[in-house]
Amino acid sequence: MTDNEILGPPDASRHPRYTEPATFARLPRIDQVASADVSVVGIPFDSGVSYRPGARFGPSHVRAGSKLLRPYNPALNVAPFSTQQVADCGDIAVNPFDIEDAITTIDSSITDLRKDGSTVLTIGGDHTIALPILRSMARDLGPIAVLHFDAHLDTWDTYFGAPFTHGTPFRRASEEGLIDMERSLHMGIRGPLYSKQDLEDDGVLGFQVIRSDDYEFDGVKSIVERMRKRLDGGPVYVSVDIDVLDPAHAPGTGTPEAGGITSRELLNTLRGLVGLNVVGADIVEVAPAYDHAEITGIAAAHVGYELLSVLAANR
Amino acid sequence: MTDNEILGPPDASRHPRYTEPATFARLPRIDQVASADVSVVGIPFDSGVSYRPGARFGPSHVRAGSKLLRPYNPALNVAPFSTQQVADCGDIAVNPFDIEDAITTIDSSITDLRKDGSTVLTIGGDHTIALPILRSMARDLGPIAVLHFDAHLDTWDTYFGAPFTHGTPFRRASEEGLIDMERSLHMGIRGPLYSKQDLEDDGVLGFQVIRSDDYEFDGVKSIVERMRKRLDGGPVYVSVDIDVLDPAHAPGTGTPEAGGITSRELLNTLRGLVGLNVVGADIVEVAPAYDHAEITGIAAAHVGYELLSVLAANR
Amino acid sequence: MTDNEILGPPDASRHPRYTEPATFARLPRIDQVASADVSVVGIPFDSGVSYRPGARFGPSHVRAGSKLLRPYNPALNVAPFSTQQVADCGDIAVNPFDIEDAITTIDSSITDLRKDGSTVLTIGGDHTIALPILRSMARDLGPIAVLHFDAHLDTWDTYFGAPFTHGTPFRRASEEGLIDMERSLHMGIRGPLYSKQDLEDDGVLGFQVIRSDDYEFDGVKSIVERMRKRLDGGPVYVSVDIDVLDPAHAPGTGTPEAGGITSRELLNTLRGLVGLNVVGADIVEVAPAYDHAEITGIAAAHVGYELLSVLAANR
Amino acid sequence: MTDNEILGPPDASRHPRYTEPATFARLPRIDQVASADVSVVGIPFDSGVSYRPGARFGPSHVRAGSKLLRPYNPALNVAPFSTQQVADCGDIAVNPFDIEDAITTIDSSITDLRKDGSTVLTIGGDHTIALPILRSMARDLGPIAVLHFDAHLDTWDTYFGAPFTHGTPFRRASEEGLIDMERSLHMGIRGPLYSKQDLEDDGVLGFQVIRSDDYEFDGVKSIVERMRKRLDGGPVYVSVDIDVLDPAHAPGTGTPEAGGITSRELLNTLRGLVGLNVVGADIVEVAPAYDHAEITGIAAAHVGYELLSVLAANR
Amino acid sequence: MTDNEILGPPDASRHPRYTEPATFARLPRIDQVASADVSVVGIPFDSGVSYRPGARFGPSHVRAGSKLLRPYNPALNVAPFSTQQVADCGDIAVNPFDIEDAITTIDSSITDLRKDGSTVLTIGGDHTIALPILRSMARDLGPIAVLHFDAHLDTWDTYFGAPFTHGTPFRRASEEGLIDMERSLHMGIRGPLYSKQDLEDDGVLGFQVIRSDDYEFDGVKSIVERMRKRLDGGPVYVSVDIDVLDPAHAPGTGTPEAGGITSRELLNTLRGLVGLNVVGADIVEVAPAYDHAEITGIAAAHVGYELLSVLAANR
Amino acid sequence: MTDNEILGPPDASRHPRYTEPATFARLPRIDQVASADVSVVGIPFDSGVSYRPGARFGPSHVRAGSKLLRPYNPALNVAPFSTQQVADCGDIAVNPFDIEDAITTIDSSITDLRKDGSTVLTIGGDHTIALPILRSMARDLGPIAVLHFDAHLDTWDTYFGAPFTHGTPFRRASEEGLIDMERSLHMGIRGPLYSKQDLEDDGVLGFQVIRSDDYEFDGVKSIVERMRKRLDGGPVYVSVDIDVLDPAHAPGTGTPEAGGITSRELLNTLRGLVGLNVVGADIVEVAPAYDHAEITGIAAAHVGYELLSVLAANR
Repeated sequence: MTDNEILGPPDASRHPRYTEPATFARLPRIDQVASADVSVVGIPFDSGVSYRPGARFGPSHVRAGSKLLRPYNPALNVAPFSTQQVADCGDIAVNPFDIEDAITTIDSSITDLRKDGSTVLTIGGDHTIALPILRSMARDLGPIAVLHFDAHLDTWDTYFGAPFTHGTPFRRASEEGLIDMERSLHMGIRGPLYSKQDLEDDGVLGFQVIRSDDYEFDGVKSIVERMRKRLDGGPVYVSVDIDVLDPAHAPGTGTPEAGGITSRELLNTLRGLVGLNVVGADIVEVAPAYDHAEITGIAAAHVGYELLSVLAANR
Repeated sequence: MTDNEILGPPDASRHPRYTEPATFARLPRIDQVASADVSVVGIPFDSGVSYRPGARFGPSHVRAGSKLLRPYNPALNVAPFSTQQVADCGDIAVNPFDIEDAITTIDSSITDLRKDGSTVLTIGGDHTIALPILRSMARDLGPIAVLHFDAHLDTWDTYFGAPFTHGTPFRRASEEGLIDMERSLHMGIRGPLYSKQDLEDDGVLGFQVIRSDDYEFDGVKSIVERMRKRLDGGPVYVSVDIDVLDPAHAPGTGTPEAGGITSRELLNTLRGLVGLNVVGADIVEVAPAYDHAEITGIAAAHVGYELLSVLAANR
Repeated sequence: MTDNEILGPPDASRHPRYTEPATFARLPRIDQVASADVSVVGIPFDSGVSYRPGARFGPSHVRAGSKLLRPYNPALNVAPFSTQQVADCGDIAVNPFDIEDAITTIDSSITDLRKDGSTVLTIGGDHTIALPILRSMARDLGPIAVLHFDAHLDTWDTYFGAPFTHGTPFRRASEEGLIDMERSLHMGIRGPLYSKQDLEDDGVLGFQVIRSDDYEFDGVKSIVERMRKRLDGGPVYVSVDIDVLDPAHAPGTGTPEAGGITSRELLNTLRGLVGLNVVGADIVEVAPAYDHAEITGIAAAHVGYELLSVLAANR
Repeated sequence: MTDNEILGPPDASRHPRYTEPATFARLPRIDQVASADVSVVGIPFDSGVSYRPGARFGPSHVRAGSKLLRPYNPALNVAPFSTQQVADCGDIAVNPFDIEDAITTIDSSITDLRKDGSTVLTIGGDHTIALPILRSMARDLGPIAVLHFDAHLDTWDTYFGAPFTHGTPFRRASEEGLIDMERSLHMGIRGPLYSKQDLEDDGVLGFQVIRSDDYEFDGVKSIVERMRKRLDGGPVYVSVDIDVLDPAHAPGTGTPEAGGITSRELLNTLRGLVGLNVVGADIVEVAPAYDHAEITGIAAAHVGYELLSVLAANR
Repeated sequence: MTDNEILGPPDASRHPRYTEPATFARLPRIDQVASADVSVVGIPFDSGVSYRPGARFGPSHVRAGSKLLRPYNPALNVAPFSTQQVADCGDIAVNPFDIEDAITTIDSSITDLRKDGSTVLTIGGDHTIALPILRSMARDLGPIAVLHFDAHLDTWDTYFGAPFTHGTPFRRASEEGLIDMERSLHMGIRGPLYSKQDLEDDGVLGFQVIRSDDYEFDGVKSIVERMRKRLDGGPVYVSVDIDVLDPAHAPGTGTPEAGGITSRELLNTLRGLVGLNVVGADIVEVAPAYDHAEITGIAAAHVGYELLSVLAANR
Repeated sequence: MTDNEILGPPDASRHPRYTEPATFARLPRIDQVASADVSVVGIPFDSGVSYRPGARFGPSHVRAGSKLLRPYNPALNVAPFSTQQVADCGDIAVNPFDIEDAITTIDSSITDLRKDGSTVLTIGGDHTIALPILRSMARDLGPIAVLHFDAHLDTWDTYFGAPFTHGTPFRRASEEGLIDMERSLHMGIRGPLYSKQDLEDDGVLGFQVIRSDDYEFDGVKSIVERMRKRLDGGPVYVSVDIDVLDPAHAPGTGTPEAGGITSRELLNTLRGLVGLNVVGADIVEVAPAYDHAEITGIAAAHVGYELLSVLAANR
């Protein structure tokens, strides 16, 4: 391979897709390429969850679900593996017994991956990991708009006194000045809260909220317009908690809520990011022990594929 | 606890939600409170089913699925556990071997629960149980409008000569004068019938029908308007057969039919009941052996939550 | 039974539906009737698949899922088992070890079934089987319009050098002149392709494409209009790959893609075929080992039911 | 076929076993043969169960699990389908809503099947069905020894006041004089009882008990000797509740108990019946909704196969 | 209830076992009785696991699996709920985000439960919890013999530097002098270790090892003899990691190893404890997300039942 | 790494085992080491199966199940990854549409892997693959003894006229002179055959048969003795069809038969190979779609581990 040759997945008509390699979308490992424009990395960490654990098995499950991805995206008319070098960087080994130690490791590992200008797509793991990723990114880029897909706000304060859990990353990130609050928004929010104060606190932080019900009543096109208007004007970090999908579309997750959005709505929303300055992304909270026939893993893999396609389209 | 203090679920940030108690929404048991404004009760009975049995395990499954419910409902801006005392009254022990004996027991047990003015939310069990509940209620209140969510009409006459099964409650209730036929309607109906006569018989009884396909073509808002117009003017009993949901959203049920409504459509329809005089409700036909990752149990729990929220909003 | 008496399923109020017979919709076997207007036949073949095998168990699974079908279709106001004799012809025994031998057997078996003018509804099996079915039909009828529901185009050229697989039937059929390319279309297409060339090749063949996203943005009514306009004017073959449904609605299939259509959308689209000249149909790619609680099998059974209803309505 | 030709399953090397027919062991249906030496019949009835229902789906599940059975049994050196005509007689349609009506139907249907001297192998359904089968048989044969494999005694008196349930058949049969109490025994008994009185009552009835623990400590050979000694000297009815197997070997059942026997122990015990006068048999309590990968259905099918082999060896 | 009346489960012939209460073996809650001779308590904690998490859902799953337990144990001829008051004390709410805080809470909660002389049977949760339980007990009783059933030694030193995890409780307990090393033993050990040093370290601590293979070659009787000999002469704490069972018998656990013992072997070994001074016990590592048809939960419930029976027999 | 340094799995106390790499036992890939003493390779091929397909996903499933394997085997007192370099060579990409082409590819790929003297452990895939492996080996080594663990003989002649399927490898290998028939044997055989001729044909070929029932009646020690006596005196190839295990221990396979051996019996039998000249091995017929909680994958991984340990012990 010369330095400027781009390496994609092996030809599936000669290497059946159930055959190796076990990387995201069957892409090359980072050690097989000179460098990566986009680094896909797993963070098998779930010690921050408050209900069903198991997202530590998320990275390998999403990789398995990604075997069916093919190289050309007709919806955006891009070939995301041909115009940019995407590579699988494996998993970050983090301490399951000490959340703060894990956060430190994630921050430094993400910083390493980003150091040659690579854009990082992370596969969690629970939502706790968004905090150290944002820390790493904001250190370079300053406050970043967060586009947060989730059933839940994830701006709670503490749980059992613990400040760093999967329910708190955007509160902490906001307090630490990592987020551009004028341009951030939650998407797909639904379901009961602890109290009215939750919403008010979230509003004080500055997030805009687009609810799952807005998809029911307004439709994807209108939502994409609102989203683009909000995000415009600077770097955008995309954080997709798979529980933004309805449990019918994503049973394999830790805190499912009825009344969610469909995978078709989600994928079409993500395509609306073309032209915006996406600087990083994560897909979190895939808990394989609760999945069936890989439907959650496949949905998550498609989310990753659309994000990679947006990055390709933006080049 | 003083008499007028309202007891809600324990604080989930100190008592993880996978911890006891095993009550609906982790609410207090009836023996822990002075009295209940709303009584949640299970009826583990499924001897009236014609296809897959198993709804006898419905009450415990829906309780398990309700552990994630939180105290504040932003969609309706109410805190359903704070403005009314809701309590879990456990299960009614009914005879699985004699349908008529079971019906008698249910009637008297529901009458007991209602005797201090408590509104009862029942978790089935199969749809047979709607008949004795309506008997108990109509004895006090006279004929009641029935808002019936279901894939099926449930107005068949007999099955194997048996008059009381999960396919007949609304026929019997209608014949017995328990239902205000001018104000009742089926919601979400779909799928094949035994004959054209089924629909005609149902029409003679007087039910209005809103089909699952009406959701496809007209949307939730229009349906809510029609529903409210039909129900207005008197007491309303809400009976939710979980198979009104598409099998994708509720695999755990006994007689699934393709082409159903989504949980988002159902929850938004239920929210349309605010301002109507809801006097009781049931959620039936959750068959856990066919569920996956609790998605049916969670959907049913959310149905219960919206119903409790409507009751709270109406106070 | 006299020759012109039509035999339907046994009365479910005396023969519970979990009781025999194990035929599609509990209909008579072909040996129980004088002749069949519509022949339902299984083809348990899956040696043409490129990812998850298992559709060889599709026919028995769809039959199991069809037990709940009842005789009257209110959506189309027809009784599909009363106005035409529908019979279950069992399965075609085909060679799992030699694709070309299997194709030959299927062609001759379908030709046999069709020889008294019977319309054939086939339950696969993988999509490879569409080719020999089209060969058999085009031999009599000339080129036929194909209405193809699928996540995938199935117009690839070869795979591992093999010309006959589940990814190639419509390419081969087109090359062989079996398809009326002016009137054919793919429905529900979505997801990544191997390359932009795939779409271009498909366009050269002449297929029109209606994407899953068109359902999101245009709705069923508009799609039905486009479909009817395209299909009008001659015989139509309907080929339903169950993976046209979203994995939430059809997890039990071999190459699932996120972002699909719902079963409600699919059934309502099929009802739009009334008045068109449907001459045959298949339902393929149901892989039971990946199904849950029969939701895929039930969806496929409803697809078959709507197709039979269209045939009845057209008589 | 001439009258004395014996019809077996189709050749699996030309008709793959996942292909039709859907009969036990792919044997002919009763309407395809002149008469049957052994009649296999399903009784899809589970209204007598006290815990998990679902055995109404047992007959079709055991038939599915029997597809892998082949014609020659090397353990007993017999070809059970070649030396006797075995046929599948389908299912007996019984009333799920009235246990006594069901019992009457079963009695008369079994009597019909037996009237030309056919030996009947029944696939349940729950254990309630053993009573009407024994009534039918004892009417001709007088009291019969019962060889009863089960985790439970099934000699309880009533449950919710009901005399006929899956926990009482052998008490009722004993009271009615249908059983030769000097020669009957329970095999594989284990687990907690309601009280010491249960065992004493059972002893008064006259059953001998061989416990699951006897398999642990004494081994199959010793148990077979004891069993043969007890059963010798008259007709024997074999009743196999699949929960005699450990839940590891038979998860798909209604009242599982840890500490059971293995399928290898059970099959080897059944082979010990060669030379004894087996006059009928049942396999009950297979509840498919709780099965995994058909392991319970396959175990039950093998039980049926060994019983058919014993009948063949005894001819 | 008078002070000395013993309250057992409700009569299952009037209160079906799928009906409330949701306590272990349907026993009374601690608030329903004056005091308890034996306290059953859940510890839903799994933050100490190194592979599959999920044992936090263990307590409710084992309670569900215990519904089928009946009051009389014929194997030991005792009625464990009639001769001693057993009560369900609910769950101990512990911090999932801080292992040391959790350990402190467990220690003090167990000490509270034990303070009136109640014997405590704990349902985990992961094996980490054995350490604080032993701390609580040794504080009163001095060093205690530990009878440890497990596939693994659980005497590793640290993992990711963490001293308190599910792989280390018996190392820590030994170092802290909580265990009578002369009388302790591991049972059912099997599978690969990190190094030969593991065994040597364990030997230095003083544990005796009975391997799963010893069950294969020596049988239960011989093992019970060795076990009794080792344990004799003082108080015994029994700790049962459910993964001591083969994955066939206990799939629902976090670190399964092939080649384990059967539930029949385990239950018969536990019965061998009659006459020994059992002062407490736990059942840990039941991870419901990996269970099927409750077979692991039922096995664990039977383990608890035998332990309660031993306590009853010893009174 | 120097040339003679042996690379094992990463330290699991710093790299949690659910973290990368996705290789067998987390061992290095072949490109990470200078050369391999033992090569582990997957062959994802299942086009030779006659019943349930799906073993093409076997290699990745067994690798997932192998994550829990640790470096030291106390049963044999060897560290199989420290005294020999074991490496994961990935999968051989074979044609799923042409069995003979696949066989050719496998033969040449295995020959490549073996060319530097590496011993090959293959993970299937269906049993068809044993033929080309034996062809490759016998070309160098002459006829080899085959130790064949299986429920089935796999010495059938043809199926649908096809000579090369998963039911025929040892017939073909025998006919081609690849097997030393004086020293070969089947282990764990059970269940029905097509005819008595099957056994006779197998006997003519020269195989010895040890049945599953021999384990029941004779025990492992006696069987190991017989096995060792038969195999002594030359090279041995070990072929383990996972269906030799009872379906309770290995549900995830294509043609399960009740009455099998336990994983404890199998592992202890394999340990009996120490001192014999094992020259290669395979583990086949793991079909993940039918597995539960990885119990089949874990059992297969342990089989591989014992085989690697035998190779280490023999060095």
